Amino acid sequence: MAKEITARSENYSQWYLDIVNKAGLAENSAVRGSMVIKPYGYAIWEKIKEDLDRRFKETGHQNAYFPLFIPKSFLSKEADHVEGFAKECAVVTHHRLMNNPNGSGVVVDPDAKLEEELIVRPTSETIIWNTYKNWIKSYRDLPLLINQWANVVRWEMRTRPFLRTAEFLWQEGHTAHATEEEAIKEARQMHDVYADFAESIMAMPVIKGSKSESERFAGALDTFTIEAMMQDGKALQAGTSHFLGQNFAKAFEVKFLNSENKEELVWATSWGVSTRLVGALIMTHSDDDGLVLPPKLAPIQVVIVPIPKPDEKILEVAEDISTKLKAKGISVKIDTDMKKRPGFKFAEYEMMGVPVRLGIGMRDLDKGVIEVARRDTKEKESVDLENIDAYVEKLLEDIQSNLFQKAVKFREDRTSYVDSFEEFKEVLENKGGFIYAHWDGTAETEEKIKELTKATIRCIPLDAKAEDGIDMISGKPSKRRVLFAKAY
Amino acid sequence: MAKEITARSENYSQWYLDIVNKAGLAENSAVRGSMVIKPYGYAIWEKIKEDLDRRFKETGHQNAYFPLFIPKSFLSKEADHVEGFAKECAVVTHHRLMNNPNGSGVVVDPDAKLEEELIVRPTSETIIWNTYKNWIKSYRDLPLLINQWANVVRWEMRTRPFLRTAEFLWQEGHTAHATEEEAIKEARQMHDVYADFAESIMAMPVIKGSKSESERFAGALDTFTIEAMMQDGKALQAGTSHFLGQNFAKAFEVKFLNSENKEELVWATSWGVSTRLVGALIMTHSDDDGLVLPPKLAPIQVVIVPIPKPDEKILEVAEDISTKLKAKGISVKIDTDMKKRPGFKFAEYEMMGVPVRLGIGMRDLDKGVIEVARRDTKEKESVDLENIDAYVEKLLEDIQSNLFQKAVKFREDRTSYVDSFEEFKEVLENKGGFIYAHWDGTAETEEKIKELTKATIRCIPLDAKAEDGIDMISGKPSKRRVLFAKAY
Repeated sequence: MAKEITARSENYSQWYLDIVNKAGLAENSAVRGSMVIKPYGYAIWEKIKEDLDRRFKETGHQNAYFPLFIPKSFLSKEADHVEGFAKECAVVTHHRLMNNPNGSGVVVDPDAKLEEELIVRPTSETIIWNTYKNWIKSYRDLPLLINQWANVVRWEMRTRPFLRTAEFLWQEGHTAHATEEEAIKEARQMHDVYADFAESIMAMPVIKGSKSESERFAGALDTFTIEAMMQDGKALQAGTSHFLGQNFAKAFEVKFLNSENKEELVWATSWGVSTRLVGALIMTHSDDDGLVLPPKLAPIQVVIVPIPKPDEKILEVAEDISTKLKAKGISVKIDTDMKKRPGFKFAEYEMMGVPVRLGIGMRDLDKGVIEVARRDTKEKESVDLENIDAYVEKLLEDIQSNLFQKAVKFREDRTSYVDSFEEFKEVLENKGGFIYAHWDGTAETEEKIKELTKATIRCIPLDAKAEDGIDMISGKPSKRRVLFAKAY
Repeated sequence: MAKEITARSENYSQWYLDIVNKAGLAENSAVRGSMVIKPYGYAIWEKIKEDLDRRFKETGHQNAYFPLFIPKSFLSKEADHVEGFAKECAVVTHHRLMNNPNGSGVVVDPDAKLEEELIVRPTSETIIWNTYKNWIKSYRDLPLLINQWANVVRWEMRTRPFLRTAEFLWQEGHTAHATEEEAIKEARQMHDVYADFAESIMAMPVIKGSKSESERFAGALDTFTIEAMMQDGKALQAGTSHFLGQNFAKAFEVKFLNSENKEELVWATSWGVSTRLVGALIMTHSDDDGLVLPPKLAPIQVVIVPIPKPDEKILEVAEDISTKLKAKGISVKIDTDMKKRPGFKFAEYEMMGVPVRLGIGMRDLDKGVIEVARRDTKEKESVDLENIDAYVEKLLEDIQSNLFQKAVKFREDRTSYVDSFEEFKEVLENKGGFIYAHWDGTAETEEKIKELTKATIRCIPLDAKAEDGIDMISGKPSKRRVLFAKAY
């Protein structure tokens, strides 16, 4: 595990794959495009889930579970939706295998063909709104605030662990409301929940905005997004929240009697984040020595390594520190493996991104100090054994905050404001990163810019200032700048 | 929700479906055999998961995630395994839909046929052991102790919510060991974990035993089971733990270098419980008024209902009690809905199986008491407002223990020891329940009994006393009694 990894400057994509591999996060499986999430990678996902789940429940949502399979006809009911998902879905056509009549192995039993094919869910709007039809009769049944933790499948052709896989894990919220205003408020609320989670837990700064029409979710009237900058300057869409209007209510005939006893169509939202967040986490903080994790998502927050070897006195001190830290809710591992040398272990925990490492040696102990190393800056200090727990607790907070500040600065340094297309291309090519430029609001110029530069409109920032300007391509007037970048 | 349900004595199956439906636990979906788990049912499953997950981690296991899809050829690699699962699996054959050339809707795109079909996992031994091949090189990589929380699909023809569904949620542990002894010890340990969970958390007494050869998991050398008695006297297999020997290691060539540098095949276990446990829970405790939940799995442990209506003073008292109970880790709901009358609410929370109901009315308050109703016995008491929190805490413990004792007594009353086949048939027909009888250990008599009576050997109990006897059918000698019953 402690072998070298490719430097970012040398080959950024390979650096990413090396970290995923050598920190033991995930690996490719025998099934094209599907990954195996290894225990350490899954432990990070569990911490993400735990925090988000709490936030969803605090905002009044309940979890439920809907079928993995979606009847083919359901997908067709919302026109944009089927257009968006039909081309990349796994289709179940049979329900039985049989012994190969020609000899060994098994083959699909032709007699077990399904009357209607089933689609492995790429997202669950259709099956859920077909269910909501029976749950919603009156305004008293609204709002309906439900979330699902599930696996979904989209048959992507080019995949990369966590960032884009054929199967991935995610949560999908699906809510139903009596009024348009309430649905929009809900979509924005969950957008805020995602942004706050990204910044305060992942230590990953994000730009909040709405998507241009062509980048919206298939079936949405408005898509709110959080966009983060990765270390290669590219944007990563880290979470989206959709205002779906009455599109799915229309498609599945979901109506309710309002308080005046009149029938109305229900208003909808959906919102989701996925295991992609683990990829975002890696690419926001990690360095050429391996993974760097913000303390709030680190499965092991503190590792204690005895130096040169774990004798009784050293282990006693280690246990004592561990007990004190655990009492503060900090997760600790004491590494008592005698077969590996301390130097090897140091490199190993660096690779795994453990935020704080405590080295305990006899020479230090005699002086009443121990060595504290922080993963983010790689600084080491001798710290008094007394109050080591308070010191470490504070240090974890510092690391969390330092990682966020560092990422903010990284993004600011790579953010440009440009006014001409020449400049746009020049910045994109040489500096990269986020570019704020004027846009006339048409799909034509958006498409043209994408075609010529591969940069897309990541979002129309919510906090964009009103500013008169001119579209770089069409020369038509624009009222505000939007965010352009190349993206994952 | 508070409408009547079918009595058990009238129609047991309908009673079960009525509870699932009217307590809001689950419902059938548009996909044949797949259910929608509704928020209240899912909340019970979350509590089951949470407790089990803690137990798995305490016994050294880590969670991970493996692909939903299994290449068809993998399934064939272990002969018994494919025999067991090939006849009831969902097969993915294509990865794209296209617009119907004849008009509306979408059809499967014939050009998007997969080279090798993918099976939606019915269980994950094959894909996991194919992965373990790369993870295990030396004895230092062992034991490998992994669990997965996932959905699986088995194309069952006759389904019933929670008890038997085409798709269900479960956990599957998959461990790898250097020695046979260690693998057997692991399989037995997880068997113990399941049994303890069933009894101490679900309040559901279980018989621990091993399965006869014909009832073993497809590919196992030994299957340990926990068997519970439902209220119709039938047995329900609530969890199994398998010793897989070296079958999967052979099939996927998973070898390791032992400490003497010699190559050996790895030993395996797998173990799982599923959303079926929710069905078991319903059928162990519930009555003709609805669901009855053991406090340790109740999403709402205490409900507070203001009588006749929530005025300020009453709400103040309710909030105060709620705060005190929550401080003790007890979940509380105060029902302030003004539109429903208290009597309606009482029936509703009875249907939902909320263990304790507190009714707060002004007349009682003036006397310094409130009404406490327990769901299990339906008893009501006036309790001093002072120390109500300690009273309720103790009451929840009593209910948990009472439910277990009641279930033990129910099982004991319906357990028989018989020595002849005539008696066996007579007991099975008139009394039902569990029957301990002698068995010669052959598949022939086992099969014959099943054919003639539909009763199966549920298990060879681990604590069976050595006792000489004679097989009821063959007249051959037997060394101990085994457990027979009709089963779900």
